[in-house]
Amino acid sequence: MGDDCALLPASNVSQLITTDSLSYQVHFDDNVDAHQAGEKLIKRNLSDIAAMGGRPQHAVLALLCGPNISITWLELFFRGIRSCCIQYDLQIVGGDISTLPPSQFSAVLTLFGSTESVRLRNTAQAGDWIYVSGTLGGSIIHKHWSFTPRLQQGSWLAARSECSALMDLTDGLAKDLNALIPAQCQAKLDLSKIPISSDAITLATQANRNPMELAFCDGEDYELLFTVRSNQPIAFEHAWAQRFPQLQISRIGQLCVAGDGARYVDSQTGESLAWTQGYEHLKQT
Amino acid sequence: MGDDCALLPASNVSQLITTDSLSYQVHFDDNVDAHQAGEKLIKRNLSDIAAMGGRPQHAVLALLCGPNISITWLELFFRGIRSCCIQYDLQIVGGDISTLPPSQFSAVLTLFGSTESVRLRNTAQAGDWIYVSGTLGGSIIHKHWSFTPRLQQGSWLAARSECSALMDLTDGLAKDLNALIPAQCQAKLDLSKIPISSDAITLATQANRNPMELAFCDGEDYELLFTVRSNQPIAFEHAWAQRFPQLQISRIGQLCVAGDGARYVDSQTGESLAWTQGYEHLKQT
Repeated sequence: MGDDCALLPASNVSQLITTDSLSYQVHFDDNVDAHQAGEKLIKRNLSDIAAMGGRPQHAVLALLCGPNISITWLELFFRGIRSCCIQYDLQIVGGDISTLPPSQFSAVLTLFGSTESVRLRNTAQAGDWIYVSGTLGGSIIHKHWSFTPRLQQGSWLAARSECSALMDLTDGLAKDLNALIPAQCQAKLDLSKIPISSDAITLATQANRNPMELAFCDGEDYELLFTVRSNQPIAFEHAWAQRFPQLQISRIGQLCVAGDGARYVDSQTGESLAWTQGYEHLKQT
Repeated sequence: MGDDCALLPASNVSQLITTDSLSYQVHFDDNVDAHQAGEKLIKRNLSDIAAMGGRPQHAVLALLCGPNISITWLELFFRGIRSCCIQYDLQIVGGDISTLPPSQFSAVLTLFGSTESVRLRNTAQAGDWIYVSGTLGGSIIHKHWSFTPRLQQGSWLAARSECSALMDLTDGLAKDLNALIPAQCQAKLDLSKIPISSDAITLATQANRNPMELAFCDGEDYELLFTVRSNQPIAFEHAWAQRFPQLQISRIGQLCVAGDGARYVDSQTGESLAWTQGYEHLKQT
């Protein structure tokens, strides 16, 4: 801190870099606890590192805020950042502060991690099984503030040869799963295996909607979505349960060579699935 | 691109990281050329890399914008970024896009560089001469859009043993010089050597102000401020003129052990100088 750049020593492993932001009136409003907002900024980025099988190391923080920001709020925000950095052994090595017009606030964190065995999104093949960790949907009620980045699980998966592709779920299964499906393939999904969260059921009941739609389309699950080579699912599931007994995984489907263009197919009926829209960024109004 | 993080190979030299932002209604308005705005975002960060004697390598870009942004404007903005990346051999390896409320726009660039011989700010000593490159003040007229990051000069300075400390001028000489002055020292400044820009003189004439005040206090000069060991100024100046005949440097003063607390002293009169305020971020209104 104090110089024009942060200075880091040379490193003999591959570097991961991710950047993510948190903005007032978009990701939070006046009702949100500042400490939780600070934690969320860090954890969103940690989830991206987990999604590549990496370990977090350093971060730089760009703070953009209007002159009328509450100093008390900002202090609590930084305490949230700090407690999260301590918990995940992460160092903030530099940053920038910049003015915005009144009542605007954004924070952008760029996070660096390291990995010896990285997992990408585009390395799955036909025949691979599709898995998700945890439960899906309804995160707006609670989970989008209180999630745990799946760092240990991501790192463990990246080190296992049967795990063929890995990412995290941020924009909803319906949108994110697309990235794992190779060209000329489709995902045959077993809808009975989709792990619908209790919050998705609560929300769906209140709004008279289909809970399955929320599990597919709600954003901010911050769970892992990954594929496993076809001949080893049972042994893999056993190894996971031994290592992570507290966190369920669900084998929700399989990648198959596609006869037609449908990306998502119901494995029971063979019909094309309608849930293909996740959270869309930058919708034009 | 396309995965949750950017992935970079291991590196055997020290890494530099800097982050800087550009926001609508703060750094630019509707009258500003989008291409120039894109270039400026890159060049501000390049100036920080120059200030540590580094070479730029990779960057990640976080884009935050309201849904009503003009796609034409955004395309021109990206063309500005692209042309600057080509010019400075810089690769954008990842990023994030995120929504803001209508009519808000910020872009945050985090830039990575490498260096074999880094120069910091806090390594100057009593006796060292103080230099600036180029001319100072009045950047609001033109230069804050059209400056050249001093990358070649920064890298050259960092490799020379007589250069004892180095930084760039972004908040104005009056504020930035403080960072180079060791504890128990002061800067004795020769006001006749301060390189006042012709734009500072134009502005001062229009506003009936002292051009020297603008040279000290205006921000966004994007010149280098550095110190040189005491016994070698003439040889050093000769070497600079040979290597960079197009860019003047000015020996504006010397670091001296201080009898009292004044940080800036007029070397002719011995009086304390009043220009001690540069551009202040986050002024509370």
